[in-house]
Amino acid sequence: MEKNTVAVSLEQAYRLLNHGPTVLVTSAHGDQCNVMAAAWNMPLDFKPPKVAIVIDKQTYTRELILASGSFAINVPCAAQADMVVKAGSSSGRDWLEKPETSKLAALDLPTFAASNIQAPLIQGCIAWLECKLIPEPHIQETYDLYLAEVVAAWADDRVFSKGHWHFEGHDALKTLHHVAGGFFFTPGESIQAK
Amino acid sequence: MEKNTVAVSLEQAYRLLNHGPTVLVTSAHGDQCNVMAAAWNMPLDFKPPKVAIVIDKQTYTRELILASGSFAINVPCAAQADMVVKAGSSSGRDWLEKPETSKLAALDLPTFAASNIQAPLIQGCIAWLECKLIPEPHIQETYDLYLAEVVAAWADDRVFSKGHWHFEGHDALKTLHHVAGGFFFTPGESIQAK
Repeated sequence: MEKNTVAVSLEQAYRLLNHGPTVLVTSAHGDQCNVMAAAWNMPLDFKPPKVAIVIDKQTYTRELILASGSFAINVPCAAQADMVVKAGSSSGRDWLEKPETSKLAALDLPTFAASNIQAPLIQGCIAWLECKLIPEPHIQETYDLYLAEVVAAWADDRVFSKGHWHFEGHDALKTLHHVAGGFFFTPGESIQAK
Repeated sequence: MEKNTVAVSLEQAYRLLNHGPTVLVTSAHGDQCNVMAAAWNMPLDFKPPKVAIVIDKQTYTRELILASGSFAINVPCAAQADMVVKAGSSSGRDWLEKPETSKLAALDLPTFAASNIQAPLIQGCIAWLECKLIPEPHIQETYDLYLAEVVAAWADDRVFSKGHWHFEGHDALKTLHHVAGGFFFTPGESIQAK
C-alpha cells in the first residue's frame, strides 16, 4: 500500500469523482496491463457506488476490461499533468510487440496492488476506485459507454479525508480538470453555499 | 438572447463540460417547466456531440424530459452557488398545485428562449447546451442514465471564447464543481501540459 493511502468508505466513494477530475484508467488481464486517460467519467449511483466512463473502441484498455471484467480509476494530480497527457496520446498497443515492457513501464509509472481486482493502481495518484464492469453490451458497442460498480476506494489522506478534499498547502496534489489540448484547471477557491 | 452570449460550435461543445462542472437541467412540456441540479454529467461524444447525465426517478424533470424529448444543460457560476443548492434540494412537484408559478419562478430565475428546444435557458448562467434525448429505455430505467445529442450550444464570451474557458478577472463567473453538502470548488490555477 502507498504511504498516506487510506480506505474511503463505499458510501463516500462518489466524492472522489463528484467535482469532475480527469482520471487514468488502469486495466490488466493475464500478463498484460495498460493505462489510459479519461476526462469523460462520472458517478452513477451512491449505494452501491457505480460509475460511468467512456472507453473508446480503439483502446487496448477496452480489450483488457472486456477480458478481465474489471478496471481501476486512478485520480492523478497536478504534478502528473505531463504524464497524463502522454498517457492520453499513445496506445498500449504500441508496446504489444515488446513483451518485456508495457505502456505503464514506458511512462515510468510504478504501481501497487489493488485489493479486489487485477488492475494495478498507480503510485503518486491521489485516489483510486477499484471497479467491476457491469456488462451492458448495447451501450458499450453503440456509445463506448462503460458502467461499473466500485468495490473498493482509496485516497491520499493528505488531500482527502472524512469525505472531503482539502488541497490547502498541497498544490502539487490538486486534481486535474482537462479542458482540451493539455490545458487543465486545478481546484482554486472553494464556496460553502447556504 | 442574453447579453454576452455567443454561439459555440458543435465541435467544441464538449469543452463546456469537459472540466467537470455541476450543471442545472431545465425542461419544459406544454405549459410546465422545471429546473434541477446535476453534478453527474459528462460529454459522451465529439461529433455529433453527445452527453450523458443522471436524472433520478423521483424528479419532475424526468417526466418533462420523457414527455418533450429534450432538455437544456445550463452551466451555473460562482455567483449562483446558493441558488444551485436550493435547486438541488427541492422538487418541481412542490409547485404543481400552484399553476400560476413554478420552481423556476420560486427560485427567481429569469430565462430566455432556446433556439431548438422548448426548455428555457437560465439567465446569469455562463454556458448552455440544448439537448435532444436519445431514447435508451433500458439504461434510463435501470440506472437513471440519460443520453442526448447536443443540437446547439452557447456561452458567455466574457469567460468562454475560441474554444477555451478564461476566468481571469471574473471570479463570480467561474464554474462550480460540487463535492458534497453544498461545498464547491471553482477553477484556480491552470496548467498547460507539455
